[in-house]
Amino acid sequence: MSTRNATPLDDFVAERLPAWVALRRDIHREAELGFTEYRTVAVLADRLGQLGFALRMGSEVMAGESMRGRPAPELVTRRAASAAEIPGGAAVARALPDGMTGLVAELRRGDGPVVALRFDIDALPVNESADRAHRPAAGGYRSANAGVMHACGHDGHAAIGIGVAEWLADPRSRWSGTIRLVFQPAEEGGRGAKPMADAGVVDDCTHFFAAHLGCGLASGRIAAAATSMLYSTKLDVRFRGRAAHAGGSPHEGRNALLAGATATVGLHAISRHGEGRSRVNVGRMDAGTARNVIADHCLLEMEVRGETEAVADYMEQRAREVIAGAAAMHDVTHEIEVVGQTIGGDADATAADIVASAAAATPGVREVLPVWALGGGEDAPFFMRRVQARGGIATYFVIGADLAACHHAVDFDFDEASIGTGVAVYARVVEQASAAA
Amino acid sequence: MSTRNATPLDDFVAERLPAWVALRRDIHREAELGFTEYRTVAVLADRLGQLGFALRMGSEVMAGESMRGRPAPELVTRRAASAAEIPGGAAVARALPDGMTGLVAELRRGDGPVVALRFDIDALPVNESADRAHRPAAGGYRSANAGVMHACGHDGHAAIGIGVAEWLADPRSRWSGTIRLVFQPAEEGGRGAKPMADAGVVDDCTHFFAAHLGCGLASGRIAAAATSMLYSTKLDVRFRGRAAHAGGSPHEGRNALLAGATATVGLHAISRHGEGRSRVNVGRMDAGTARNVIADHCLLEMEVRGETEAVADYMEQRAREVIAGAAAMHDVTHEIEVVGQTIGGDADATAADIVASAAAATPGVREVLPVWALGGGEDAPFFMRRVQARGGIATYFVIGADLAACHHAVDFDFDEASIGTGVAVYARVVEQASAAA
Amino acid sequence: MSTRNATPLDDFVAERLPAWVALRRDIHREAELGFTEYRTVAVLADRLGQLGFALRMGSEVMAGESMRGRPAPELVTRRAASAAEIPGGAAVARALPDGMTGLVAELRRGDGPVVALRFDIDALPVNESADRAHRPAAGGYRSANAGVMHACGHDGHAAIGIGVAEWLADPRSRWSGTIRLVFQPAEEGGRGAKPMADAGVVDDCTHFFAAHLGCGLASGRIAAAATSMLYSTKLDVRFRGRAAHAGGSPHEGRNALLAGATATVGLHAISRHGEGRSRVNVGRMDAGTARNVIADHCLLEMEVRGETEAVADYMEQRAREVIAGAAAMHDVTHEIEVVGQTIGGDADATAADIVASAAAATPGVREVLPVWALGGGEDAPFFMRRVQARGGIATYFVIGADLAACHHAVDFDFDEASIGTGVAVYARVVEQASAAA
Amino acid sequence: MSTRNATPLDDFVAERLPAWVALRRDIHREAELGFTEYRTVAVLADRLGQLGFALRMGSEVMAGESMRGRPAPELVTRRAASAAEIPGGAAVARALPDGMTGLVAELRRGDGPVVALRFDIDALPVNESADRAHRPAAGGYRSANAGVMHACGHDGHAAIGIGVAEWLADPRSRWSGTIRLVFQPAEEGGRGAKPMADAGVVDDCTHFFAAHLGCGLASGRIAAAATSMLYSTKLDVRFRGRAAHAGGSPHEGRNALLAGATATVGLHAISRHGEGRSRVNVGRMDAGTARNVIADHCLLEMEVRGETEAVADYMEQRAREVIAGAAAMHDVTHEIEVVGQTIGGDADATAADIVASAAAATPGVREVLPVWALGGGEDAPFFMRRVQARGGIATYFVIGADLAACHHAVDFDFDEASIGTGVAVYARVVEQASAAA
Repeated sequence: MSTRNATPLDDFVAERLPAWVALRRDIHREAELGFTEYRTVAVLADRLGQLGFALRMGSEVMAGESMRGRPAPELVTRRAASAAEIPGGAAVARALPDGMTGLVAELRRGDGPVVALRFDIDALPVNESADRAHRPAAGGYRSANAGVMHACGHDGHAAIGIGVAEWLADPRSRWSGTIRLVFQPAEEGGRGAKPMADAGVVDDCTHFFAAHLGCGLASGRIAAAATSMLYSTKLDVRFRGRAAHAGGSPHEGRNALLAGATATVGLHAISRHGEGRSRVNVGRMDAGTARNVIADHCLLEMEVRGETEAVADYMEQRAREVIAGAAAMHDVTHEIEVVGQTIGGDADATAADIVASAAAATPGVREVLPVWALGGGEDAPFFMRRVQARGGIATYFVIGADLAACHHAVDFDFDEASIGTGVAVYARVVEQASAAA
Repeated sequence: MSTRNATPLDDFVAERLPAWVALRRDIHREAELGFTEYRTVAVLADRLGQLGFALRMGSEVMAGESMRGRPAPELVTRRAASAAEIPGGAAVARALPDGMTGLVAELRRGDGPVVALRFDIDALPVNESADRAHRPAAGGYRSANAGVMHACGHDGHAAIGIGVAEWLADPRSRWSGTIRLVFQPAEEGGRGAKPMADAGVVDDCTHFFAAHLGCGLASGRIAAAATSMLYSTKLDVRFRGRAAHAGGSPHEGRNALLAGATATVGLHAISRHGEGRSRVNVGRMDAGTARNVIADHCLLEMEVRGETEAVADYMEQRAREVIAGAAAMHDVTHEIEVVGQTIGGDADATAADIVASAAAATPGVREVLPVWALGGGEDAPFFMRRVQARGGIATYFVIGADLAACHHAVDFDFDEASIGTGVAVYARVVEQASAAA
Repeated sequence: MSTRNATPLDDFVAERLPAWVALRRDIHREAELGFTEYRTVAVLADRLGQLGFALRMGSEVMAGESMRGRPAPELVTRRAASAAEIPGGAAVARALPDGMTGLVAELRRGDGPVVALRFDIDALPVNESADRAHRPAAGGYRSANAGVMHACGHDGHAAIGIGVAEWLADPRSRWSGTIRLVFQPAEEGGRGAKPMADAGVVDDCTHFFAAHLGCGLASGRIAAAATSMLYSTKLDVRFRGRAAHAGGSPHEGRNALLAGATATVGLHAISRHGEGRSRVNVGRMDAGTARNVIADHCLLEMEVRGETEAVADYMEQRAREVIAGAAAMHDVTHEIEVVGQTIGGDADATAADIVASAAAATPGVREVLPVWALGGGEDAPFFMRRVQARGGIATYFVIGADLAACHHAVDFDFDEASIGTGVAVYARVVEQASAAA
Repeated sequence: MSTRNATPLDDFVAERLPAWVALRRDIHREAELGFTEYRTVAVLADRLGQLGFALRMGSEVMAGESMRGRPAPELVTRRAASAAEIPGGAAVARALPDGMTGLVAELRRGDGPVVALRFDIDALPVNESADRAHRPAAGGYRSANAGVMHACGHDGHAAIGIGVAEWLADPRSRWSGTIRLVFQPAEEGGRGAKPMADAGVVDDCTHFFAAHLGCGLASGRIAAAATSMLYSTKLDVRFRGRAAHAGGSPHEGRNALLAGATATVGLHAISRHGEGRSRVNVGRMDAGTARNVIADHCLLEMEVRGETEAVADYMEQRAREVIAGAAAMHDVTHEIEVVGQTIGGDADATAADIVASAAAATPGVREVLPVWALGGGEDAPFFMRRVQARGGIATYFVIGADLAACHHAVDFDFDEASIGTGVAVYARVVEQASAAA
């Protein structure tokens, strides 16, 4: 593929890449959890506004009743305040009530297809490595928010989104129609896509594209469609027991911590499914108050996943039985709250072909794969299905990026050159979609 | 016992009780955890100083190297700051470095025995009930420190200590010698007595007395000696594993949360001992960061207890095996830190007789029992053994008090009239010890 | 106590002891499980008949409807056949239908009290040590029945019973009235006493005595009354799930073995009780058929115990919750069957005094204790309560015996000289009861 | 496919099918576990000898040092005796020492390829349903050996082997070269193939074919090659603790049953692997002796599986950690014995083409699939790899058969018409392999 000649787009990417990397690092340093991306949205809105995009945000682009797994109000307040350090940020924060941190930026250029591109922007509750071998630590852009980290590359996604916006606003870009950039909060936990899809932000779209960096695909490789996106359900489980003095009257206690521990072990022991991959994880447990008091409360934050809807249903059903049984074993009560969900999605061959063709035309792309199996879940299918149900086409593709460690690890990092590759591929995808229409 | 006549002491108690109740409620509202009782000590020091007691505190009365289970520095700083609201409190806070919140108040009146009385002053990490049926909530003195509560009656102990000080400073009291009031931090967790004992604060004492309110004994009853104080060891256990994406590469994780859950279940399943009561409790568990990440850390706050040293040793030995085995099961590392300890203690018959006699002479005391079995642990025996080893005598007695709920429960409360009873008994104990010498 | 002179009884004991030891060893070698003691009863019946005792057995002395935890019919048949090797044994076996292996032997001598003595005769499902250091192994009387062992000393109890019978039938013995020797099957598991008590075999008794060898009391010591006999309930628990291929379709299985394992861990983790000793043990588990099949069945043989009825009730209630919860966790069904029970019993002071006096008069008894705390359960209280409810008096005493290993261990053995002590004390108990009447 | 004309082979199959069904039912009724198939081998040897095949068996065709998971000697003796009811059976039994129940039957017809066909003949430790809805129960050929059942269709495999032998011995069959029928014991547990492969029984083969009935493929469908045969390791785990009286001295026990239960739960909770299917099952547990004795022994019969060697290695490694950790938790010792193994195998395209072609030519075959994913493990790959390593070709194919229940279930049964299909396909495979050479 060495024969491809550099185009104006490619020159543009080469020239702008340092700026996008700087943006990525800024967002990385100010990592924000799902539904609290106030500063991040303020930064993005500032840039997109300057580029001439029309902006909608907050309750205009999110159906509040579809929001699950909302953050603590104190955290929302704190992050909203942080937006004020960005020009225009205070106004943005006011426009994002109650954690409604979705942002939609639109640009029109005559008639043509309505192409939606989706970029997720949230970070994870991971405590970033301070080791000097971790580039963000050595480079001074390690997360300033203790316990919150961009450990999945969404900072890169956001930077790609701005890069694409810059090109599409550039007179040299060749497209007509409508471009809609969907900056989605709270992909982690499978929470942000559904409220935006339910608000109708992609209802009139002819094309929908979303992508992820990394996912085990090396730099220079592009996969036109992701398969094996796991169905998942995110659950918060609360056990309530009865406190008592652990020395004097332990029999009067009803041990919620022990119920949670029993449930945890039982959940991980749910049998594999013969018809597809299954997953279960209790990722957080917080229980009890003092060592000499029988614990009267326990919170489990967990998820189940399945390769198919049937497998996912089996896992959720069994998980509910395990939780209820563990509560009964220890004579405590329990509540289960669904706080997030992801579903599987199928790419349209036509949409995947556009990506494959765009990738093949991009310098630095050494290999284009038709499909790539994702191990994780994604909530982009909520958009994909909405578009497909109305006659549009969609795909979720993968932008290869060498990784320093696996996704969600404390020393996760990715090859920042892939931001340029991502911008170039996305830009060509839009141009080709426009040309084909 | 209706024939007892009111004495000047009894009149004094009746007159001053409302003030002591008010003091108890003030301390209750500003409940402070072990080794962070800055405001509490400031209040006590202010009153004791006004009464003419000589005060020693901080590193003068605590051996720093014996302190275990120290609190987080931020919490120490915050509570130290809170002392400033009390007259002279800022100076007191400076005199209590690094959580050394012990206070010793001494009064001399000629020659005679050296009598130590010990009062513990710390609260528990319990979230106090806000229910209107809970008197402190209805009365406006529910804990203002969220998650911290005087759920064991040490607020009452502190108030009794001030009451006794007032009487002993009163010219009507009949005693000679030296009175030493030991206000001890961090009894919960068995942490505060040993550093004070190791600092020698009771080394020259001829008599040592300590007591607890409640413990299942009704108002109007006094037990001259407690038996069955359980030996206990308090442990913090930390598991360290490896984080990984729970969907994509769960096999690369090493699940510290699951190790903690397995250990918890195994700990509670340690076999009973045939030769005496045993206890085990994991009272707190905090593990993991996010539901879709294999948890790489887990903290257990736990304790084991035994009726005898042999039973306690068996429990600790088995607990260590269970913890190490659970870590090995899940291929994670672990650390065990001893953060507190209590030991058993035997009363001297002569000391118990003094209490019995004092109690019998006190109006409102309907019954005096020779012994009462405590279910819990106590660190007062660290003082008792120190005194006894140097030829002094000691007892730990129980002041009956009707309770609204069991010790350590969120709606614990006690009959405040027992504060008066406690002052009267303690005062007579000192007078009788003095008279007998 | 060296001043006691040897009496005719003591000479008799010294002379006959070797024969009783030989009998004990014969019974030891032919150890039989509860409700299958056919050969043992045949041996006892043969000797008692020769001594002139009137014999009743089988359904005459057992209420069939009260029998629980019956053995497998094949085993009953096999043991019944083994009785034929004893003179008259075939007739005895016919008189003991369906595992009704109770035997009552009675002797009358004029008017007087009706004194019942109870001796339990069953062995345990323990695989006896073949180590040469184990005296029965070295001496050639190790159990010939694989997996069945007299590991609790009931072989000694049976031998004592015969020794007492010999003396009471001897013209030198001084008593009048009625002597009733109750040879009880199936004490282990708490199964044999209730059917005999319900059949009324002690209803007309003025006195009831039973005893145990060993129990932690050394040779030469006698305790006049046992305390702390634990209340217990013996349960068989059956889980039923669904089998499936563990490789191809594990999700179609419902894992009864995993439910049983979960229940087992949960049962052992039931909280200690603050008001008295508690016990729980799953002593046997048998589950599944093949390693590559999800197990569809699981049997747990378990027991719970408590120092008081309230503690025992707590344990049983919590155990039932744990079992039901574990079944629910794994979506399997369960059944709980009560197969045995023991209850606590209180000695009458008068009865204990008779034992104390008899013991004090017996050469070789170095110390007489008023009470001794038993750790285990006993079903003798079913007889004791029946007698006490009708105006009689009762005690359960302990005959000290040095042990080679603890009760129920594979290398359990006891000092056989204690058989002689037991005969002498029992004989004097009868004579004193007769004299006092 | 309705255009295929019946050939002499097809007529032969139609005519002989009832005899093969009768043979299958005879073998079904006399189901024998792995390495104890004495009667089964006697039946097969008798028929094959009459057909003119040269027979080798026992240590001639099995490498004793490769045998793992041998059965109890008593069972071997019992089944060896059962062979005597078959003509010549006593001699056969003598030729199969120590559970070496392999049989190889060979027929030569001039020059040509050496074609091996492998048929596994063992049953499972499953207790066959006695329900009238279960055809073998209604038809009088339910297993006569309690707890042993042909629940995987190997009875059908054996009958197919005889059918193929009959046709190949028939003058109408068209082939030349050498036919070697390998009747393999102990496929369940992955034990029988390796000793036969190690003995060299397929070392000179140009072709190797094996097949399974059912596996989720309906009657009338043939898959030319199986994929996804799981790697597996079969383990026996033994825990040894210390017995003690559960009431009196539970702390002196070391609970092997509880260790086994803890291990079981932990084993099932081993994390899924991100790179392929994994399985774990504890299929049997047998522990302890009596409910009132702390259990001193526990046996687990278990297996782990993986889609790839890496996944299987991960599972075995983690299983060993879980087992060792659980033993450490409960202070007991443990031993792990590998008693069987299966490995993955890849079909040669040429071999699969032969099967596909043969299947396409067979009346009643409605569909031929190139591959079919097996969920379980198979030890046939030990033969496949041996042949392939020496230049031969191999495939493992699947013969569709409607099933009454899933493999290994108590009411497993298969459509017996598939026996005819199997014979016809296998016969054509041999003829085509011969023709192509």
